[in-house]
Amino acid sequence: MVLETASLWIKPGEQAAFEQAFAKAQRLLAGLDGYISHELQHSLEHAHFYLLLIEWRALEDHTLRFCKSNELLRWRELLQDFMAEPPQIEHFQPVRLPR
Amino acid sequence: MVLETASLWIKPGEQAAFEQAFAKAQRLLAGLDGYISHELQHSLEHAHFYLLLIEWRALEDHTLRFCKSNELLRWRELLQDFMAEPPQIEHFQPVRLPR
Repeated sequence: MVLETASLWIKPGEQAAFEQAFAKAQRLLAGLDGYISHELQHSLEHAHFYLLLIEWRALEDHTLRFCKSNELLRWRELLQDFMAEPPQIEHFQPVRLPR
Repeated sequence: MVLETASLWIKPGEQAAFEQAFAKAQRLLAGLDGYISHELQHSLEHAHFYLLLIEWRALEDHTLRFCKSNELLRWRELLQDFMAEPPQIEHFQPVRLPR
């Protein structure tokens, strides 16, 4: 399992419209091969900052399949006008440690 | 519920020792009032970068209770020597959207 984090700085004053657009955009994720779950998180310190967390089965489900899909084109259509800067994307794997 | 993210850049070559120390440090979290869960995630793009995700019942459980506790002193004793720079901390609340 791989965690994608997308750091999203949106344009000032656009929070409500961005969240409405995201409610539509997130439906694109549900049908994707390798998609497991997602959460949109809103910063308590910075009103225009969101963190999108997406769990994928494997890295390639995001970097190959989603990034070359028609769903990504539609995703961008819905969301890119709200971005103050390009999203910063990073991928992680959980560290398995004894509790 | 509040999500704390701690971005941790550790010193090159220290991954294994850091993960061992973290396995001890995480035991300090379990007994804290307001602590819900945590995950340590390791970047696939940057070998020395980790993301620690901690769920708290409320912001103050982290910023007041934990940050003024003896557990934080012990936490720092265990982990701070591995840090290449001070951790970057941010807090989030989940955005509730219709699916």
